[in-house]
Amino acid sequence: MTGAVAFTVPNSPPRAIVLLSGGMDSAVCLAIARALGFECHALSFQYGQRHASELDAAGAVARALGVAEHRLVDIDLRAFGGSALTDDIDVPADRTPAEIGRDIPLTYVPARNTVFLSYALAHAEVIGARDIYIGVNAVDFSGYPDCRPAFIAAFQATARLGTRLTDLTIRAPLLRMTKAEIVAKGQSLGVDFGITRTCYDPDDDGRGCGRCDACRLRLTAFAERGLADPAPYVTG
Amino acid sequence: MTGAVAFTVPNSPPRAIVLLSGGMDSAVCLAIARALGFECHALSFQYGQRHASELDAAGAVARALGVAEHRLVDIDLRAFGGSALTDDIDVPADRTPAEIGRDIPLTYVPARNTVFLSYALAHAEVIGARDIYIGVNAVDFSGYPDCRPAFIAAFQATARLGTRLTDLTIRAPLLRMTKAEIVAKGQSLGVDFGITRTCYDPDDDGRGCGRCDACRLRLTAFAERGLADPAPYVTG
Repeated sequence: MTGAVAFTVPNSPPRAIVLLSGGMDSAVCLAIARALGFECHALSFQYGQRHASELDAAGAVARALGVAEHRLVDIDLRAFGGSALTDDIDVPADRTPAEIGRDIPLTYVPARNTVFLSYALAHAEVIGARDIYIGVNAVDFSGYPDCRPAFIAAFQATARLGTRLTDLTIRAPLLRMTKAEIVAKGQSLGVDFGITRTCYDPDDDGRGCGRCDACRLRLTAFAERGLADPAPYVTG
Repeated sequence: MTGAVAFTVPNSPPRAIVLLSGGMDSAVCLAIARALGFECHALSFQYGQRHASELDAAGAVARALGVAEHRLVDIDLRAFGGSALTDDIDVPADRTPAEIGRDIPLTYVPARNTVFLSYALAHAEVIGARDIYIGVNAVDFSGYPDCRPAFIAAFQATARLGTRLTDLTIRAPLLRMTKAEIVAKGQSLGVDFGITRTCYDPDDDGRGCGRCDACRLRLTAFAERGLADPAPYVTG
């Protein structure tokens, strides 16, 4: 026995980093983290996107769901080229779900989730967060290799070895949900889908094209739930 | 048997990404990759460093060793704070080798190698490189968790899952060498150590302080080989 006195410290909620794109999936992901009681630190990335509407949406979602902070990080992925989202290649339109799922698409950004998760990891280590949320989805994953469960597990192992955060968890709660299930989950948590943006090729007012892969997967999900998508579209 | 004709295509050398800091280790790493016949694409990072001498050195090393290209990538790690190399904290000086090896040091940059390797991976995927060289070193590793063999292996597994590069190799040829062995290897490959820079706290002319952990480990290595370090120092 020593003379040490045990102090009671006020409970502060655990911190989580949440990757926030402004799209539907990451908004639901943030709502899940908030519902579990995490103090959420949102990170969004600017990387040579041709449209700012997604980042505006990320800010609106962050405010609506009550994050502790929202940071914008500049990434010059345009320097790497090689993708429709960062180069001046036409975004594919009017593809069927079968076509969308078939290949690694032109809109694939090289190593995107690896880069994003690395920044999240750095920020987690600085603020002492033990959880990182990412809204990836392996069911309707559009052919991106860095949206697969094995990738998420491998990144977590790497992160635990590469930092002081030996108990870090990468949380991907949407990983095995369909888009329709994600819509349902967001509804149950009160997510305002009207402020989220998904389109790869929006107009100057941030309205979705309704024709790119992202719009088509999203609109199909709302239709499957028997709902109208409250986000604005050029067509329909 | 078909009528197909086999064409002979000219052999082009395989491409490698080489992370190049301007220090001694990454210079030797680049020399090793060049000696093996790789077409080398060097990447250096600007991240709120207080001194440009390291990046000048990286440029000089890239030219001296004949890279195919040398890219500078901006990283705003200062946004993350938390390290002597990116914040305005005093750099530790005059520590003994035992002290240097004991803890994760103040000069640790959160998740640095994870972030650097992620960018290297993105660039590798774009240019079709199957090899990434990084000059980490686990023997005199100064307590950085992201310089350990298990971290390198885990990142390679993550990289293969997260991209199209299913046969990507992270090469860390210095991993199990002592600093003195690295000096010897560089000598045998004709590396001009006089143009490399290592110091955490150089003066305005890029001369090493001779007292920070990096200088002390480097000077000890040259002394063990019975050599004078050709790089400039304020003292000595």
